[in-house]
Amino acid sequence: MTSTLILLRHGNSEWNQKNLFTGWVDVRLSEQGVAEAKRAGELLAESGLAPEILYTSVLTRAIQTANLALEVADRLWIPVKRSWRLNERHYGALQGLDKAETLEKYGPEQFQTWRRSFDTPPPPLDDDAPYSQVGDERYADLPDAELPRTESLKLVIDRMLPYWFSDITTDLAAGRTVLVTAHGNSLRALVKHLDGISDADIAELNIPTGIPLVYELDDDFRPTAPGRYLDPEAAEAGAAAVAAQGKK
Amino acid sequence: MTSTLILLRHGNSEWNQKNLFTGWVDVRLSEQGVAEAKRAGELLAESGLAPEILYTSVLTRAIQTANLALEVADRLWIPVKRSWRLNERHYGALQGLDKAETLEKYGPEQFQTWRRSFDTPPPPLDDDAPYSQVGDERYADLPDAELPRTESLKLVIDRMLPYWFSDITTDLAAGRTVLVTAHGNSLRALVKHLDGISDADIAELNIPTGIPLVYELDDDFRPTAPGRYLDPEAAEAGAAAVAAQGKK
Repeated sequence: MTSTLILLRHGNSEWNQKNLFTGWVDVRLSEQGVAEAKRAGELLAESGLAPEILYTSVLTRAIQTANLALEVADRLWIPVKRSWRLNERHYGALQGLDKAETLEKYGPEQFQTWRRSFDTPPPPLDDDAPYSQVGDERYADLPDAELPRTESLKLVIDRMLPYWFSDITTDLAAGRTVLVTAHGNSLRALVKHLDGISDADIAELNIPTGIPLVYELDDDFRPTAPGRYLDPEAAEAGAAAVAAQGKK
Repeated sequence: MTSTLILLRHGNSEWNQKNLFTGWVDVRLSEQGVAEAKRAGELLAESGLAPEILYTSVLTRAIQTANLALEVADRLWIPVKRSWRLNERHYGALQGLDKAETLEKYGPEQFQTWRRSFDTPPPPLDDDAPYSQVGDERYADLPDAELPRTESLKLVIDRMLPYWFSDITTDLAAGRTVLVTAHGNSLRALVKHLDGISDADIAELNIPTGIPLVYELDDDFRPTAPGRYLDPEAAEAGAAAVAAQGKK
């Protein structure tokens, strides 16, 4: 028996527009991001794929994306589970900084390391920094030692994969079509696992925003074929745009 | 220990605007209903009440209302549970009919009986009628015999209260502030229980749309004081408008 997994990266946010590092800062979709989410809903509806359960992070921009897409696809009524384990990578002390200024200040090598190194996280964010998540009610159940102050992609994998195995695969095993609406790095972490991408090669993987990525999975939750975007042409252009980020 | 329960009736829908009986037909909010939901979010934010978990029916207009209100109140990230047990009353064979035409055809006595009788449901809806819910995927887990074809308020209470006791009170007992976003009759059913309103008197209770109704509950989930609307003046006008429905 196969099951269907649909991954959806949220679209343009207010801070994408301002070219700021976001991470766990809870910003909203921009108007462009709202349009991307609705377009994702149209793609879902046209595909005939019918998500039966929704997973989201606890960040507003991913939840807005899911709500807008499912409203267009007429499936707002499906059950929802949220987890901080699907959050974007915590960007540490970079959260709130201008990407272009950071690039200029630290140079392209350091900049690219922070953006794409597999296991080198940015410096940690101070607990009393303006964009710290310490004290944020939505993480109240999380032991303080588990609340990230910075993360590499490796650390994202370490906290995301347990949730994949404990919760998401349980719904897949029950035969449900699962929609996961999340972020660039939590989805890269998942795709790395699904496609068996090496620590070195994952740096080159860019997931475009707002275009559903569909996997058929076997009984062991391994892809039976490469994932396919519901709008391949737009996905290619979108991935190139992501790769060019910060290079302005 | 007390806990806080917030009830919110969805606002104007596309079929309210057309003056049609809706029941379980899954119509969307009108523009007016969208504005009401956002206003509810403002009232929540101004009140300082912070819902920690959301309950909704599986009908789009209630889910839209919750999503819009929580987006304004900046609490989209709270956990969500949905159940058909919070759905609007099933209006039986009236679903899809024009309220004014029905009033004219059957007369004010029969009309008012169908709208406000405690235990007389309208005639059942045929399974092959255009607005039947038989075969609707969202009720697939419900045994056919439990899927309503018509309901009185009494029958709504019979299917709603078990969920109150099994699920909603469990979250209240854990000290959570609970938001229930639902419908005129599922909320009348709950308020009847909370306020101990008699079968005769419940006919006179009209819950206005889009205005959060707040209860403080004791350890036995009984109100410590009468429920209060977050905008009492608008609530009074809204209740009068509901009472006047169909009388055009």
